[in-house]
Amino acid sequence: MKKELGPLMGLYPMPVTLVGALVDGKPNYATIAHVGIIDFSHLSLSMSKSHYTNPGLKMNGTFSVNMPSQEMVRQTDYCGIVSGSKEDKSSLFKTFYGGLETAPMIEECPLNMECKLVSTIDMPKHDVFVGEIVQTYIDEECLAGGKPDFAKIQPILFVIAADYFRLGDRLASAWSVGKELKQN
Amino acid sequence: MKKELGPLMGLYPMPVTLVGALVDGKPNYATIAHVGIIDFSHLSLSMSKSHYTNPGLKMNGTFSVNMPSQEMVRQTDYCGIVSGSKEDKSSLFKTFYGGLETAPMIEECPLNMECKLVSTIDMPKHDVFVGEIVQTYIDEECLAGGKPDFAKIQPILFVIAADYFRLGDRLASAWSVGKELKQN
Repeated sequence: MKKELGPLMGLYPMPVTLVGALVDGKPNYATIAHVGIIDFSHLSLSMSKSHYTNPGLKMNGTFSVNMPSQEMVRQTDYCGIVSGSKEDKSSLFKTFYGGLETAPMIEECPLNMECKLVSTIDMPKHDVFVGEIVQTYIDEECLAGGKPDFAKIQPILFVIAADYFRLGDRLASAWSVGKELKQN
Repeated sequence: MKKELGPLMGLYPMPVTLVGALVDGKPNYATIAHVGIIDFSHLSLSMSKSHYTNPGLKMNGTFSVNMPSQEMVRQTDYCGIVSGSKEDKSSLFKTFYGGLETAPMIEECPLNMECKLVSTIDMPKHDVFVGEIVQTYIDEECLAGGKPDFAKIQPILFVIAADYFRLGDRLASAWSVGKELKQN
């Protein structure tokens, strides 16, 4: 039996990210899970306009998307509940920079994407930042066959109101398991 | 040690969806995992311009986002490897309609979002459809305290090139577990 919930966002779980940007010249990290894939080289971040990070991101036109592992869940959550206007969150992590020079990244995160801001979708309460990935960094031990291994990265998954989940077991091969239903 | 991978999309895992639209007046379902949250009532779908579904979605201005459960992994994958131009995928599922009347939804999927197309981002190879959710439907047994319970929904998670994963265990409470790091 189907029940109507009204217009409720149900597109979960989503991967939790730490978004890095310079604000007043200092690295700051915000926890964002309302993210999206635009195409193979572009991603989106939905960030409440009240975030301390947004002006820095707009001013520099650069940012980073860092994927924390499950063992970083406390620090990750902390970056979501404390504003950079009140506390210096950069002290939680070791920061490094890539070719863009103004997109601070988190050394402890197993995967980091260095991005150039290419457009902003202006929603009533959110800036939706669309970034072009210019470089992706990964901890060597999280590679398998030269590709990111998410079982090793151990990403944190978010479901609203409000839980973090682990990634579960591998279920099946994509673009393959459905072939047995083919008629021809 | 960090390794550079070039500009690689690493924003995974993503929830797998079946996107429903009428094409030439007939329900069609496409498997899409390159999705995003724009704000609490808007989502995005990145769909290759070659998809059979895109013209129907544009013409009607309506579509659905259906969340398959793990037990539907074969049918879900099938809808990703077979084009609606070649096979009638609607026969795989029981279709229902909501108030919009032109957004076919899948009865067997535990969660369905009925959407109005509000804008399209034109990328070189992809149409990125931004939809406003007008109604959300859920199987009653997937509710807990009146809210969607994703442990019961058992969504399929996608990691590119190309695996499906299960959702894992609950790790921690969001907006809570980080409080212990607060100084004040």
